[in-house]
Amino acid sequence: MASESGKLWGGRFVGAVDPIMEKFNASITYDRQLWEVDIQGSKAYSRGLEKAGLLTTAEMDQILHGLDKVAEEWAQGTFKLNPNDEDIHTANERRLKELIGETAGKLHTGRSRNDQVVTDLRLWMRQTCSTLSNLLWELIRTMVDRAEAECDVLFPGYTHLQRAQPILWSHWILSHAVALTRDSERLLEVRKRIDVLPLGSGAIAGNPLGVDRELLRAELSFRAITLNSMDATSERDFVAEFLFWASLCMTHLSRMAEDLILYGTKEFSFVQLSDAYSTGSSLMPQKKNPDSLELIRSKAGRVFGRCAGLLMTLKGLPSTYNKDLQEDKEAVFEVSDTMTAVLQVATGVISTLQIHRENMGQALSPDMLATDLAYYLVRKGMPFRQAHEASGKAVFMAETKEVALNQLSLQELQTISPLFLSDVNRVWDYRHSVEQYGALGGTARSSIDWQICQVRALLRAQQA
Amino acid sequence: MASESGKLWGGRFVGAVDPIMEKFNASITYDRQLWEVDIQGSKAYSRGLEKAGLLTTAEMDQILHGLDKVAEEWAQGTFKLNPNDEDIHTANERRLKELIGETAGKLHTGRSRNDQVVTDLRLWMRQTCSTLSNLLWELIRTMVDRAEAECDVLFPGYTHLQRAQPILWSHWILSHAVALTRDSERLLEVRKRIDVLPLGSGAIAGNPLGVDRELLRAELSFRAITLNSMDATSERDFVAEFLFWASLCMTHLSRMAEDLILYGTKEFSFVQLSDAYSTGSSLMPQKKNPDSLELIRSKAGRVFGRCAGLLMTLKGLPSTYNKDLQEDKEAVFEVSDTMTAVLQVATGVISTLQIHRENMGQALSPDMLATDLAYYLVRKGMPFRQAHEASGKAVFMAETKEVALNQLSLQELQTISPLFLSDVNRVWDYRHSVEQYGALGGTARSSIDWQICQVRALLRAQQA
Amino acid sequence: MASESGKLWGGRFVGAVDPIMEKFNASITYDRQLWEVDIQGSKAYSRGLEKAGLLTTAEMDQILHGLDKVAEEWAQGTFKLNPNDEDIHTANERRLKELIGETAGKLHTGRSRNDQVVTDLRLWMRQTCSTLSNLLWELIRTMVDRAEAECDVLFPGYTHLQRAQPILWSHWILSHAVALTRDSERLLEVRKRIDVLPLGSGAIAGNPLGVDRELLRAELSFRAITLNSMDATSERDFVAEFLFWASLCMTHLSRMAEDLILYGTKEFSFVQLSDAYSTGSSLMPQKKNPDSLELIRSKAGRVFGRCAGLLMTLKGLPSTYNKDLQEDKEAVFEVSDTMTAVLQVATGVISTLQIHRENMGQALSPDMLATDLAYYLVRKGMPFRQAHEASGKAVFMAETKEVALNQLSLQELQTISPLFLSDVNRVWDYRHSVEQYGALGGTARSSIDWQICQVRALLRAQQA
Amino acid sequence: MASESGKLWGGRFVGAVDPIMEKFNASITYDRQLWEVDIQGSKAYSRGLEKAGLLTTAEMDQILHGLDKVAEEWAQGTFKLNPNDEDIHTANERRLKELIGETAGKLHTGRSRNDQVVTDLRLWMRQTCSTLSNLLWELIRTMVDRAEAECDVLFPGYTHLQRAQPILWSHWILSHAVALTRDSERLLEVRKRIDVLPLGSGAIAGNPLGVDRELLRAELSFRAITLNSMDATSERDFVAEFLFWASLCMTHLSRMAEDLILYGTKEFSFVQLSDAYSTGSSLMPQKKNPDSLELIRSKAGRVFGRCAGLLMTLKGLPSTYNKDLQEDKEAVFEVSDTMTAVLQVATGVISTLQIHRENMGQALSPDMLATDLAYYLVRKGMPFRQAHEASGKAVFMAETKEVALNQLSLQELQTISPLFLSDVNRVWDYRHSVEQYGALGGTARSSIDWQICQVRALLRAQQA
Repeated sequence: MASESGKLWGGRFVGAVDPIMEKFNASITYDRQLWEVDIQGSKAYSRGLEKAGLLTTAEMDQILHGLDKVAEEWAQGTFKLNPNDEDIHTANERRLKELIGETAGKLHTGRSRNDQVVTDLRLWMRQTCSTLSNLLWELIRTMVDRAEAECDVLFPGYTHLQRAQPILWSHWILSHAVALTRDSERLLEVRKRIDVLPLGSGAIAGNPLGVDRELLRAELSFRAITLNSMDATSERDFVAEFLFWASLCMTHLSRMAEDLILYGTKEFSFVQLSDAYSTGSSLMPQKKNPDSLELIRSKAGRVFGRCAGLLMTLKGLPSTYNKDLQEDKEAVFEVSDTMTAVLQVATGVISTLQIHRENMGQALSPDMLATDLAYYLVRKGMPFRQAHEASGKAVFMAETKEVALNQLSLQELQTISPLFLSDVNRVWDYRHSVEQYGALGGTARSSIDWQICQVRALLRAQQA
Repeated sequence: MASESGKLWGGRFVGAVDPIMEKFNASITYDRQLWEVDIQGSKAYSRGLEKAGLLTTAEMDQILHGLDKVAEEWAQGTFKLNPNDEDIHTANERRLKELIGETAGKLHTGRSRNDQVVTDLRLWMRQTCSTLSNLLWELIRTMVDRAEAECDVLFPGYTHLQRAQPILWSHWILSHAVALTRDSERLLEVRKRIDVLPLGSGAIAGNPLGVDRELLRAELSFRAITLNSMDATSERDFVAEFLFWASLCMTHLSRMAEDLILYGTKEFSFVQLSDAYSTGSSLMPQKKNPDSLELIRSKAGRVFGRCAGLLMTLKGLPSTYNKDLQEDKEAVFEVSDTMTAVLQVATGVISTLQIHRENMGQALSPDMLATDLAYYLVRKGMPFRQAHEASGKAVFMAETKEVALNQLSLQELQTISPLFLSDVNRVWDYRHSVEQYGALGGTARSSIDWQICQVRALLRAQQA
Repeated sequence: MASESGKLWGGRFVGAVDPIMEKFNASITYDRQLWEVDIQGSKAYSRGLEKAGLLTTAEMDQILHGLDKVAEEWAQGTFKLNPNDEDIHTANERRLKELIGETAGKLHTGRSRNDQVVTDLRLWMRQTCSTLSNLLWELIRTMVDRAEAECDVLFPGYTHLQRAQPILWSHWILSHAVALTRDSERLLEVRKRIDVLPLGSGAIAGNPLGVDRELLRAELSFRAITLNSMDATSERDFVAEFLFWASLCMTHLSRMAEDLILYGTKEFSFVQLSDAYSTGSSLMPQKKNPDSLELIRSKAGRVFGRCAGLLMTLKGLPSTYNKDLQEDKEAVFEVSDTMTAVLQVATGVISTLQIHRENMGQALSPDMLATDLAYYLVRKGMPFRQAHEASGKAVFMAETKEVALNQLSLQELQTISPLFLSDVNRVWDYRHSVEQYGALGGTARSSIDWQICQVRALLRAQQA
Repeated sequence: MASESGKLWGGRFVGAVDPIMEKFNASITYDRQLWEVDIQGSKAYSRGLEKAGLLTTAEMDQILHGLDKVAEEWAQGTFKLNPNDEDIHTANERRLKELIGETAGKLHTGRSRNDQVVTDLRLWMRQTCSTLSNLLWELIRTMVDRAEAECDVLFPGYTHLQRAQPILWSHWILSHAVALTRDSERLLEVRKRIDVLPLGSGAIAGNPLGVDRELLRAELSFRAITLNSMDATSERDFVAEFLFWASLCMTHLSRMAEDLILYGTKEFSFVQLSDAYSTGSSLMPQKKNPDSLELIRSKAGRVFGRCAGLLMTLKGLPSTYNKDLQEDKEAVFEVSDTMTAVLQVATGVISTLQIHRENMGQALSPDMLATDLAYYLVRKGMPFRQAHEASGKAVFMAETKEVALNQLSLQELQTISPLFLSDVNRVWDYRHSVEQYGALGGTARSSIDWQICQVRALLRAQQA
């Protein structure tokens, strides 16, 4: 009924092979990144086969040596892909066969690409998580060092982007560092769930040849083995978790970037980016743009897009392996690359940023002490709600008289409340204000020291 | 310059107050759900104020009693909202003042709605996580019980929705139960990060009045206190994590629902939903539709949408509290409600589902044993790649002759490989096939028992 | 085998009816909003049935009168829902039967809830699109009016949030207004695709009773009828498009809000929000926060979340109606409400905003004219790349000498290029700078006038 | 204060140049795809400069020839990138200068990369939209041809994946084709908004040198020019729209793929994929997997992820150009590639798919005519609600007696309603059933013909 080409109706030419489909189906252009872990997994598996009596020791050695040679070719850039190498597993096994002959055909015994690929990916991601952890720790450490070194600098704290209260610059730095420690904690949890071995799950039903999965686990230093072969070959929780981890981390970095972009405007003039992290304009000679920070901010979108994409791909899939799952790897690779760059650039930005202390100090104004003025009254016994109102009246009075809040005379203040006495003057000292906030987590110097200790202890604990 | 109404140009009428803005700004329509935790937080805070010497013991007692009365009114449904009650914090403090007078004005001393609301939300979510954990455990337990009770039922395992290999029905159930144990583990981790006290962070700078945050922590049974006041009042990681937790859990349930919808079609006829979880058609009298499962599948989208929405809201926000963060609560409330319903409906579906064992059995066919046929040859010493090819030839031969794979005669098989002997007959027994997959995590009965043990142990450990 | 309750294994109690499932399944809590369009659709359908001979004229009249009474009850708030009214269609037909008896049972002839609900939703959304169009036009008009009234105000234009070039304030306003005209154009396109009648598609196969769909279309004033009954009952493109329309529109408004939040900071001090659109702080008496703008910015997340959620729900669904589609309505209702509020609040904000002209003017600085300095040289014949470099040298010289760019003497400039002559002084006039940008779309006054004309013409054309 | 390296605190080594930042910042690895349109834009711009008197005719010719040479190098693969070529604009201008000398420095006069890149992208996407339109039309045409050729084939229509009513196979095909016509319509609208020229907007303020934007528009065959330079250089609506267009189109294709995957299961056995679009299993010799369809289904996630990512990147950005916008291109390129492949593979799948008519026919069962049985009674005058109930009773009676619905005797039917007469037999003819659904859009043959006409007319109109 069909023509020779297999084409029944209209459409473009279709022969036995559709080159567009072949390209659409192939993953070798990106999964070649897995070459090393693929070989690592195959070496462990051949040991498992030997123990199960499916390979003789000699055969195993032959395979191990062959795999080492394949690895060498990859490492030296001499591995040559064939047009038929649709994925890294095929490529490596094909090459192994060329090198050692028919024995290569025993390697895949009881294994499926379904359990193989997910083992590879877990090995790869386990390593990536370690790398990213280190980069993240370095960023946090840089921030904490800086917070410690500059812990005497005052500047305005903002809420709703309106000047709120005087704070220490170090308090700002630590607010972002503390956020990143949660990312660091989460990354370890993600890594823990990555660190589970699926090998020995076959295509769906498990392994029928007595392969000892505990041996495989030990060979590849996994923390545990997966519990159910159907789940093991088709769950991508660890990928989704990783992508979400990155998305949330990027959200933090996007917020820090936003702050620094603002602080670096002419209007704020609190900080100045190093030239290494700025660029000029092709049109406007005077411009120096915070491209590094803008790119960090923007990548939050890209990374989250990958997370959204994967979850949509997973939604409503039938059980077990479906080809849809092939979408996992490009997302992981791209996000890993992005995070690696972002964390390093952020560390570079933070470690080279210059601050303008004078501008920071000059941006403080007496109205930012209105809360402290209310607390003054609270300390004299006035209920806070009344004190808040009284302080509000003082603010209004100052505005009406067009003077700064600290320019109101004692008499003027006393028209608002008789509790105001001459010691009200102490309120107007910004550093004194900051030092009041001594409860743990506040902006007082003592609390800054405590925060630095806490974060350093966390880092030490996580690295253990 | 402006007219009395404040309107400068065109646009709709705008007076001193824009009722649309007031409604837009108010959160009381949904944050009233926080009434109980808001009072709980305020009670702890008044104890903190007393210890710090900002309240006398008598004042504290007055406030505590007043708050109890407010709580009573909420519990009995007699609390009356005022038009000015823009949020639950305002409403509760306003009512407290009506009940106990000016002392109420001392409660908010050193506190801001910024640290108050996030304390409330953490208290609320901590409880919700416990509830959801219990519901999730009940679902998993139901599945495990069922897997144990029906562990002798065979049916086809599918990959790519194509019949792949015979498996135990219990293996399928457990594949989904095991996925849910990861959700359960993750939920405990999310809960751990929710269980951290921000109270005492004020609006941004911390608490200047010597409130003992450790006392507050102990009063409210939090695991730890937040480290940095700027971060504490504005980070919503725990919300994002919770929404993502729900999204990933829903992805699992959407996949289970998809399987059951398929298995419940006329074409598969493996399972039948209880009437309690099906509905009829307004047009077609013969229809019985799996609405419960379709709704579960669909909610994966809704829940993830909330996660996506929150992350987009957070992206690029400047430091500390911005009103944008008000978006957090409706997302949490809606997702909590959805998860509560979904988990219970899923438990109901699983516990009342009927299976059609005969149909399951009849859906097995000899070609699903082609892999086992290859393994037969492997066990006789043939490298797997050759065995796979030989088995493929047998499949092709059977198709060509239009007989079932197990109808090929020994002679016919021997034309493919002389390794085929009369014991090849054992291959065609489905139960025997399944029993081969005895490596941990496989579909053999012994592995099923192991899986059940493992999942039960996990549940016990998590509940501890 | 099952117990009477239908419960086979573990799990919570499940009888013939699971109240959680009933609530999970019901849509009446939100689809009651469709009461009016549901009745409208039913009235048209009864006319179609009469023409097809399936109702006598008397029966039709009886139904029409009955439906009017039902509508009256809804309008007056006297309609009483039954516990069994799972959706608005059931509720209305149930009530009709109570009012007119068995004839009510003829109304649903040949109709399914599948084609009924999507007809209702299209009718509802068609109206909503008109409302939103009007609100959007009012916002744009307000902006254009303001741009016209304040077209003499200069202030800094920013790129990368760094001061770039002097522009007219009206140019900034128009940049956002122009973006909104695209939203307006898109909304009309979405409305066009909403305005297609699915009624007469039945559950899946169409209408077998000769109902004249053209008559139905005319009765309900639809632009066209759907082409395929399977598609008509299950496609939700128009919902997805509407949600995306709102998402993109919110992206625009979030960017405008971001600008205004920045311009309203102490540091920029270009604009001041009306009190009607600001709020105070519960802790800090001096604060006035731009809550309206922050909420607008934040809603971009919420709205997009609904879009993401719906698309995920749709992805991979089998053909035709599945209960998953029930997720469409809450998304539409919530997003419609949000857009209605946001557009009105934005109009209020824009029409009451005060600008600080002096601050705007003072924020201009000579280095923002560096590009113009380069153009000066270009006009004297220097290639732009050299001129850009020369101007850059001048900027550097001024920085080194710690003077403003326009404080460099002619001699100093001539060390950079002999093309500098005394007429270079004209470069330092900000208004003169702006007036140079006279190509269409630029910031010169003439171009502003042209833009205003163009936008007004667009509005007129769209309203036609 | 800073060390020579610019490094102030901790962190990795940072010199004047951070190679990671350089790579992070560069776009040449992907924007080189724009080489042709970048040159096209520059050629038009040099004509504009000549007309404005900023280039002599000779200079213009020199530039035009130079640009042609650059283009030639790209076309022949001989263009050599420099390490400093951070983007395609830099690369092309650098090369031009090498070829023609200083005159090259005049090309960028009054232009900024801000208006240049967005002009390039619009040119590129305009072409891509045309390509994708053609591919989409070819897919639709293939489907319509197939619907016409196989318009006599009956099979079950499903709702909720439960057998609902007999329909024509062509009706199913057309349901998907009709959905795609909306994508096609939307793509033209997106293209319309892409087809607007931003060139002449400069970096932010417009063009100060009298460049005639209408001339540029005509040179590059754009439909219109942008209205506001600030908006023109920073709006990416057309990108967001394109990504959403692709997302919605992919949703359609994911649903069609889902249907075909189901129809291709052993259980349904309605269709069989051509070998060219299936793949085997590395483990199971008997498997043939619908990889092409699974990949199509999965790409819906990827494509939407890009849309989500871009919108998140855009959200809350300040006005005008920010480096964040650099994220636009990779999204566009990846989605374009994906759509190009998906549409071609889908066309290949549809045009080579084999259908199993007998299986389709055998899947029809009398209970699917229960609705028609109700209509039989309706035609005899019974109100539909009663008829629906009566038919339901017949279904129940047949189930109880364990016979097919059409095996009930007339006497048995008459116990349900006396309106049943011997002509009830006509109900049991599937083809007769289908032919009843003759209202426009229904599944009757006449309606199929009408649909085919309508879709063909649409295609013709769109191609005009």
